[in-house]
Amino acid sequence: MATIKDVARLAGVSVATVSRVLNKNGYVNQETELRVLAAIDQLEYQPNLVARTLANKRSGTIALILPDITNPFFPELARAIEDVARSHQYTVILCNSDDQFAREISYVELLAQKYIEGIIFASNTLSTEDIIRLKNQKLPMVVLDRALDYGYCNVVRCNNYLGAKLAVDHLLSIGCQKIAHISGAAPFITAMERLRGYEDRIRTYEWSSPDLTEPGHFTLEGGRQATLELLRRHPDLDGIFAGNDLMAIGALKALRQLGIEVPRQVSICGFDGIALTEITEPELTTVAQPIYEMGATAAKLLFAEIQGTLENKQVYELDVSLIQRASTERSGDVVESKDSGRR
Amino acid sequence: MATIKDVARLAGVSVATVSRVLNKNGYVNQETELRVLAAIDQLEYQPNLVARTLANKRSGTIALILPDITNPFFPELARAIEDVARSHQYTVILCNSDDQFAREISYVELLAQKYIEGIIFASNTLSTEDIIRLKNQKLPMVVLDRALDYGYCNVVRCNNYLGAKLAVDHLLSIGCQKIAHISGAAPFITAMERLRGYEDRIRTYEWSSPDLTEPGHFTLEGGRQATLELLRRHPDLDGIFAGNDLMAIGALKALRQLGIEVPRQVSICGFDGIALTEITEPELTTVAQPIYEMGATAAKLLFAEIQGTLENKQVYELDVSLIQRASTERSGDVVESKDSGRR
Repeated sequence: MATIKDVARLAGVSVATVSRVLNKNGYVNQETELRVLAAIDQLEYQPNLVARTLANKRSGTIALILPDITNPFFPELARAIEDVARSHQYTVILCNSDDQFAREISYVELLAQKYIEGIIFASNTLSTEDIIRLKNQKLPMVVLDRALDYGYCNVVRCNNYLGAKLAVDHLLSIGCQKIAHISGAAPFITAMERLRGYEDRIRTYEWSSPDLTEPGHFTLEGGRQATLELLRRHPDLDGIFAGNDLMAIGALKALRQLGIEVPRQVSICGFDGIALTEITEPELTTVAQPIYEMGATAAKLLFAEIQGTLENKQVYELDVSLIQRASTERSGDVVESKDSGRR
Repeated sequence: MATIKDVARLAGVSVATVSRVLNKNGYVNQETELRVLAAIDQLEYQPNLVARTLANKRSGTIALILPDITNPFFPELARAIEDVARSHQYTVILCNSDDQFAREISYVELLAQKYIEGIIFASNTLSTEDIIRLKNQKLPMVVLDRALDYGYCNVVRCNNYLGAKLAVDHLLSIGCQKIAHISGAAPFITAMERLRGYEDRIRTYEWSSPDLTEPGHFTLEGGRQATLELLRRHPDLDGIFAGNDLMAIGALKALRQLGIEVPRQVSICGFDGIALTEITEPELTTVAQPIYEMGATAAKLLFAEIQGTLENKQVYELDVSLIQRASTERSGDVVESKDSGRR
């Protein structure tokens, strides 16, 4: 099999010149480059990828760190990132962090030693200090669902605040007269922005009250428990905006357990747009994030940074859309049903 | 920063000896090994992983090739494999093949160049010839849900035949008197074995008939269509065994669409045990594969092969179990309801 020395000899140049051509670094005049490429072609020389990794500090691999691939939000995101990576002839290493900070850091150290070329963080536990430290290692990175992080890296997220307002507007438009909110896990921007959108939208109604909000920790069981608690405090609530779809599914389960009809007695709207929302009975109205597009955007930004074609670090905020389904489909008798003493 | 030469000098041995210690290959006597390890420790020498990859042809990375991570069967499998890999300090490259043979092959070629140390195939399109070709490359591999492949590699699957019998037995035990089967995609062993189990179990009943089976291609929509077709042919069927959970969910949707009550008029049992079966209304009875255990077993076998501690290639068939839920919970009046002219 041909070696880099054979290529250099045939092209009449030094091994260093062949290396510069292969690795696209340093100046090589065009005529020389063409001679090298012709020699590579003639000898069917195949550069060893691992050797090139060593020379280049490049591996053709990126990493995706997420909390847990079994959380139904992440498979579609992972799929999008892998699709974009494959189109660049890159592979993707998948890391489940369980949102454990220590595990994220040990991943980052392991990955850096393998010359991973970039990381997408869809996980929540890294602090701004950690991100600055990573930036000092010159490792390209994109993060999902973060606050601004002071311009240290590109951020992809959806418009959580506007999405929450869309959800509440929709529940109001179908006649809901007392709308509760099941909020997500507290420090995360996704949870905070959705809560803020809900609060801003209901502020002017006389029924608005802080105890119409209950945390559900973004889990199905958390949503179920929160719903039972909200109904204990407010037996007359007739709309629930859940901060994600899993909690909305938990709310459905709680209402079924209590014999309360959805959507006739209580209407429900979730957030995320995961596929599960088409499986429930009734099917679930939700504020859909463009999950695939978010993953693809993050991957494209990462490759732009790897290739050095990206100048500024900024936040890319994608649009959300309301998908209306049976969990908020009320017939005309909505307003009457409110005081019909259903419980 | 210390180099391998510094370590050799301090330990009073050759660079080759240090390399043998680092890479755990070739004979080094114990006293020498301890001296080398002490020198490594004293100098805080950090072997460069990519350089070691080049020397070793080892990358500390395995690959998982599956059809599509957004298919709800695979996230838990991927999670199990990553958990086992992490415990070995390995990372996992995720590849979505969409069951496209060409894409699988190009992945394999790309991965081999990166000195991936092993591959787990949870995808269906490789032929026995392809597997033999891969074996000739000496790449450790484990495949899921395959026929025997003549001992060329380790196979992990569940007992599909027995699982199908369990499902049909259960439907019979609750009083079903005409049970249809929605089968999976034809050449795959999972589909064929589940069909065979169904057929063997109903063979002796006078109502058994080939046209009680309809393919649903393992998809939700396929299951929905198959159910409509089966009911057209057999309006009196009162039990459905679907070859996977997605098709069972499709069957639920079809029955709801027709106003047929589950489980009172038609009872449904799925296969796989994916998390979605707890989301449906009614919740779905299913024959659960130990999905996490299957992934973990595949990964453990792969690492045993990588480490050279695995002698024989064989099939590991894991047990399935019936999880009974509301979709087959009938009250006492089952037998009477059969002839009540519900449609």
